[in-house]
Amino acid sequence: MAGSSYGTIFKITTWGESHGAGLGVVIDGCPAGLSLTEEDIQIYLNRRKPGQSRFATPRKEDDAVEILSGVFEGKTTGTPISLLVRNKNQKSADYSEIASYYRPGHADYGFDMKYGFRDYRGGGRSSGRETIGRVAAGAIAAKLLGELGIHFLTYTQSIGDISVDPSRFDPDEISKNTLYMPDANAADKAQEYLDQCLENKNSSGGTIECIVTGLPAGIGDPVFEKLDANLAKAMFSIGAVKGFEIGDGFAAAKATGLANNDAFSIDSNGQIVKKTNHSGGTLGGISDGSPLLMRVAVKPTPSIAAPQQTVNKSMEEIDISIKGRHDPIIAPRAVVVVEAMAALTIVDLLFTNMTARLDSVKEFYKPSRS
Amino acid sequence: MAGSSYGTIFKITTWGESHGAGLGVVIDGCPAGLSLTEEDIQIYLNRRKPGQSRFATPRKEDDAVEILSGVFEGKTTGTPISLLVRNKNQKSADYSEIASYYRPGHADYGFDMKYGFRDYRGGGRSSGRETIGRVAAGAIAAKLLGELGIHFLTYTQSIGDISVDPSRFDPDEISKNTLYMPDANAADKAQEYLDQCLENKNSSGGTIECIVTGLPAGIGDPVFEKLDANLAKAMFSIGAVKGFEIGDGFAAAKATGLANNDAFSIDSNGQIVKKTNHSGGTLGGISDGSPLLMRVAVKPTPSIAAPQQTVNKSMEEIDISIKGRHDPIIAPRAVVVVEAMAALTIVDLLFTNMTARLDSVKEFYKPSRS
Amino acid sequence: MAGSSYGTIFKITTWGESHGAGLGVVIDGCPAGLSLTEEDIQIYLNRRKPGQSRFATPRKEDDAVEILSGVFEGKTTGTPISLLVRNKNQKSADYSEIASYYRPGHADYGFDMKYGFRDYRGGGRSSGRETIGRVAAGAIAAKLLGELGIHFLTYTQSIGDISVDPSRFDPDEISKNTLYMPDANAADKAQEYLDQCLENKNSSGGTIECIVTGLPAGIGDPVFEKLDANLAKAMFSIGAVKGFEIGDGFAAAKATGLANNDAFSIDSNGQIVKKTNHSGGTLGGISDGSPLLMRVAVKPTPSIAAPQQTVNKSMEEIDISIKGRHDPIIAPRAVVVVEAMAALTIVDLLFTNMTARLDSVKEFYKPSRS
Amino acid sequence: MAGSSYGTIFKITTWGESHGAGLGVVIDGCPAGLSLTEEDIQIYLNRRKPGQSRFATPRKEDDAVEILSGVFEGKTTGTPISLLVRNKNQKSADYSEIASYYRPGHADYGFDMKYGFRDYRGGGRSSGRETIGRVAAGAIAAKLLGELGIHFLTYTQSIGDISVDPSRFDPDEISKNTLYMPDANAADKAQEYLDQCLENKNSSGGTIECIVTGLPAGIGDPVFEKLDANLAKAMFSIGAVKGFEIGDGFAAAKATGLANNDAFSIDSNGQIVKKTNHSGGTLGGISDGSPLLMRVAVKPTPSIAAPQQTVNKSMEEIDISIKGRHDPIIAPRAVVVVEAMAALTIVDLLFTNMTARLDSVKEFYKPSRS
Repeated sequence: MAGSSYGTIFKITTWGESHGAGLGVVIDGCPAGLSLTEEDIQIYLNRRKPGQSRFATPRKEDDAVEILSGVFEGKTTGTPISLLVRNKNQKSADYSEIASYYRPGHADYGFDMKYGFRDYRGGGRSSGRETIGRVAAGAIAAKLLGELGIHFLTYTQSIGDISVDPSRFDPDEISKNTLYMPDANAADKAQEYLDQCLENKNSSGGTIECIVTGLPAGIGDPVFEKLDANLAKAMFSIGAVKGFEIGDGFAAAKATGLANNDAFSIDSNGQIVKKTNHSGGTLGGISDGSPLLMRVAVKPTPSIAAPQQTVNKSMEEIDISIKGRHDPIIAPRAVVVVEAMAALTIVDLLFTNMTARLDSVKEFYKPSRS
Repeated sequence: MAGSSYGTIFKITTWGESHGAGLGVVIDGCPAGLSLTEEDIQIYLNRRKPGQSRFATPRKEDDAVEILSGVFEGKTTGTPISLLVRNKNQKSADYSEIASYYRPGHADYGFDMKYGFRDYRGGGRSSGRETIGRVAAGAIAAKLLGELGIHFLTYTQSIGDISVDPSRFDPDEISKNTLYMPDANAADKAQEYLDQCLENKNSSGGTIECIVTGLPAGIGDPVFEKLDANLAKAMFSIGAVKGFEIGDGFAAAKATGLANNDAFSIDSNGQIVKKTNHSGGTLGGISDGSPLLMRVAVKPTPSIAAPQQTVNKSMEEIDISIKGRHDPIIAPRAVVVVEAMAALTIVDLLFTNMTARLDSVKEFYKPSRS
Repeated sequence: MAGSSYGTIFKITTWGESHGAGLGVVIDGCPAGLSLTEEDIQIYLNRRKPGQSRFATPRKEDDAVEILSGVFEGKTTGTPISLLVRNKNQKSADYSEIASYYRPGHADYGFDMKYGFRDYRGGGRSSGRETIGRVAAGAIAAKLLGELGIHFLTYTQSIGDISVDPSRFDPDEISKNTLYMPDANAADKAQEYLDQCLENKNSSGGTIECIVTGLPAGIGDPVFEKLDANLAKAMFSIGAVKGFEIGDGFAAAKATGLANNDAFSIDSNGQIVKKTNHSGGTLGGISDGSPLLMRVAVKPTPSIAAPQQTVNKSMEEIDISIKGRHDPIIAPRAVVVVEAMAALTIVDLLFTNMTARLDSVKEFYKPSRS
Repeated sequence: MAGSSYGTIFKITTWGESHGAGLGVVIDGCPAGLSLTEEDIQIYLNRRKPGQSRFATPRKEDDAVEILSGVFEGKTTGTPISLLVRNKNQKSADYSEIASYYRPGHADYGFDMKYGFRDYRGGGRSSGRETIGRVAAGAIAAKLLGELGIHFLTYTQSIGDISVDPSRFDPDEISKNTLYMPDANAADKAQEYLDQCLENKNSSGGTIECIVTGLPAGIGDPVFEKLDANLAKAMFSIGAVKGFEIGDGFAAAKATGLANNDAFSIDSNGQIVKKTNHSGGTLGGISDGSPLLMRVAVKPTPSIAAPQQTVNKSMEEIDISIKGRHDPIIAPRAVVVVEAMAALTIVDLLFTNMTARLDSVKEFYKPSRS
């Protein structure tokens, strides 16, 4: 099926393999009139770029984005925005060995069963580089949401057993450490743990949290197009994600109703607010005016140097050891991908939710408009 | 937006409120030639029917399904199948009080913000009765999958702190206790706990597991239409779900790569298999031939008899206590809903995944066919 | 494929066969707050009901519509509206002969090739009765558009060689004759011609025109989702349609640019207008502020009493003569179907076109709204 | 809305403006295993390239296509195919005047009403160059259909009043004259007429026919997703199209049932065939095994050198005369666009129609496959 598109009204289509000519995305449905430069997108892309820390892959990448269409005199025109990032230093020869067997924890086997063969170079379409397209599109979605007063805070919440200490939580710290943790102390401990993983030819999982503020109440649809259902799909569309929670998540399954319900009250501005936020900002699939709070579990990097057992295409059991230098953890590099997917999801829901009330539609199309 | 449809090729549209004339679903895209009777659907619907246990709501419901179209001489015709369940004993008067305030843990506030008003009777479209449509459609999807050798095992995995003991796991037990737990001992303890919840005018959360066997490798698409991404959305489209995991889920975030990777090997039939199933049957969004294993967190019933604080439509803070008898737990009644959504998702993915290879398409449309 | 749904945001799904339990439609995505009664829909449905003239089939039908969901206290709630029309006097026995052969001009052969078999009673899903669902939904779309100042004028433009005389065009005449022609004189001649067709055991084709006023300029999208492209699909989704034109249509293919271009000018209200309307209200797929003008060619009724040659399922060539009394013309009964499909198409385009400009989106979601 | 995507399973997204960095398309959902080179696409693109005749615009264009992704070792991989054509010699200065007023017959006014402003250079997204993306994608669709035995014959049927003479119809002639007419004599006359149009600073409309052979019976869905409904949308998505017919088209509206019905018979191979093809290969929206025959009306080039009246953005009525050299006719260059859109439509319908029968699905997924 056509699985590389996302969204209904604000729709993106990503393309590109790790070792092809390049990667990119077409954003169709961005409103006219948004100021947009390549710099706006590059800043976002750089957050997923390796090379900033010893824990990211040392392969030199220079993912310079080019806007090919949809922007005129510095503003979006309402027509499709095509973004291109050319691949560089593609050493396909390095991957010839991988062609012959199925790496544990990777999609190699599924690809061969599905398509009959695969572009085995660097993971092809299942490479982490595939996220370039969605992150570039996410930069535009996030900028657009900023114009509507909706903002994101996304960070690594835990690495292995090391979690952010709520009492030390400091948003300013996120961009100061290479692990994107909002707690310098936890980041230090996590780095030690990751050093040890690397030494053991091993890798670690982690979790990511994303907080969205400014989303009005009433967004999301009651049945299949719930706000949280769309976010769940968005997050599970990221390669290594194995779990998703909104609000209290799995803890709610152990809680009682009295503990889990959030009381409504009136704040000092006379606005309805919830006194707690166990719901994570959504009730019955519709935003409730509180900040959205979601959490994602990311599995450990499957490419590890330690010896592993697998099967080759000649149907022989073999022992392998993945060569090349790989990140000992995926989570920190996926932080910006989580944010991008959240932004893409929320823009599209805001756009598909504008017709909920007849009076709003009548106001929108009132004769004086044209 | 139009949020009551689900699926691309095997597409369903549900409709109906708790206290309207009835509820139903239209299934569009079911292949011609499937034997189908109202009994096939009724059996499935009965699994969500209350009244079987003291823990389910005592309201007498008689959800008899009628097939209105799409079946001719006992077989589906390929045209839309319309199913209708009439509502009975609708006592709207009971709900007049609810109209004036926002119940904690419910979608009331979101509905009013979204639509300007709501059908407040029995939760309207956010009622648990909304699931009648999807469960009825799920019965058809599950029957169709059975023809392809794909089967489901779905059960309550935990209630509050009480979990199924793996050493006592017995699938035959699931239908023997009213909590749908595959462990008689755990079911007994859970019933005691729920009795206590009721006495305390409180409620409990729980988790559900679903295991799918027989799914071939190669199903799901690499990027946005991943198998697990679609399942995540499916599960989060169920009202009270707050968390979703596939395979090891959040435990993978604490694991190492060496522990989390599943080695490939050759089984005694000469087939490629995985020696473990930490992945839960999907790698890179594509089925890997192992059983699918997913887990869902269900929050406690928000309607509780204990006093709570909230706000009414006159913008006053008030104290309320929800009247009527409500289930002290949602999870067991949601077991069949989880299975229905899994079945609907998998049928649609099988259908949209038939064009992955040119040689398969050529074989399908080879001249001799017509 | 799931071919019984139409629309993206204002989405309908029709179901039902000619001789099943009934027919209906689910409208998902209708905004909350529209006043709606069964009478609103019945009036529209009655325009397709036979029995009003000797040229329509004498079978007694009583297509009373029931609203099953989505309306509360006289207003739409924003949730799916389910409409049901029960079938009456279903004499399936009449159709047993049809089961064995392929009627010329009908979809029987295609159905068997596609599905392997068919519900042969009364044309099954290909019956003219299928339009009940879309006409019922169209009634709601048209009512909604009326609230936005958008109105329709739809009529039979020609029957065989007899066309409406522009100099005698009188909109009030449309509902006065059973052929829905806006020219009493043409209607009289057409009736004579149809009498003659019936006598000859034959039937006639015709054309329908639809004029839409009040549509603002700027609706429709530049590439694949053009206004006229969507209308073309809408019209060709009606069973017997074989041609579609917008504006001058095929005459434009013989014209010169100078004759075909419409000059822009300023009207007495200071508004931009076109001095002519060869374009039919759309340029480059986007509405240009002039009335939309479209024209549809409807083929003759294929069920005729005259002897015809065909093939039966035993692969024998046979001579048949279709029994029962059939309309000698389809076009007049399709007038309301054309209007319904135009209304459904335009509502959905208005809804999907609300995000063309960032400033409009910002105005819509400005903080004061919530 | 996101209007630049087309298709459900075989889905394309086009992007690019006349005077931006380039134009292109992403094809998502092409099966793995199709041999594909840039040459395959270039041949198709060259059919829309001007410069081959004195009637096409003399601007030198060199639309060399680059495959950026989705092809590995000469075969499609099943992942998105991204195609890029860079724009050359973009003289935006030429278009500064156009920025200030609305050209008659163009989408300028609609664009401004819709988006608030427009990329006025060379028509921006409404330029004929937009078709580069769809023609490139169409080349792939057509190649894929060739593998299934489905072939196209597309040509200019008439220019102004000059039509192809059926008795002189010669398919080999199509590529021999620059007007793509299958009748050398008609082509000569048409060239004289177009010379005269140019001399008069005027332009001409024309019609295009497309014949599709090899399509099996049973393709297309009964209600909204009819084969002809999809083709109608496809054709009307081409900029200058004002009319569409299938089979006898508007002539059917003047015909009788007896004349219009096609009798079924058995051919010498024992296959069911129709003795005539008034239906144009589709009955009730489903292919009937006969060749598909469709016809499209293309309006005259709106950019003409003759003086015209219009309005500028200062709301003044002005007289203009479009500068630059423009084709005196659009139809011949649109021939390949018609073929591309037909191919894209048919591929997607073949793909979405594979689940019509349960037995076919069971055969496809029979255990031996994996």
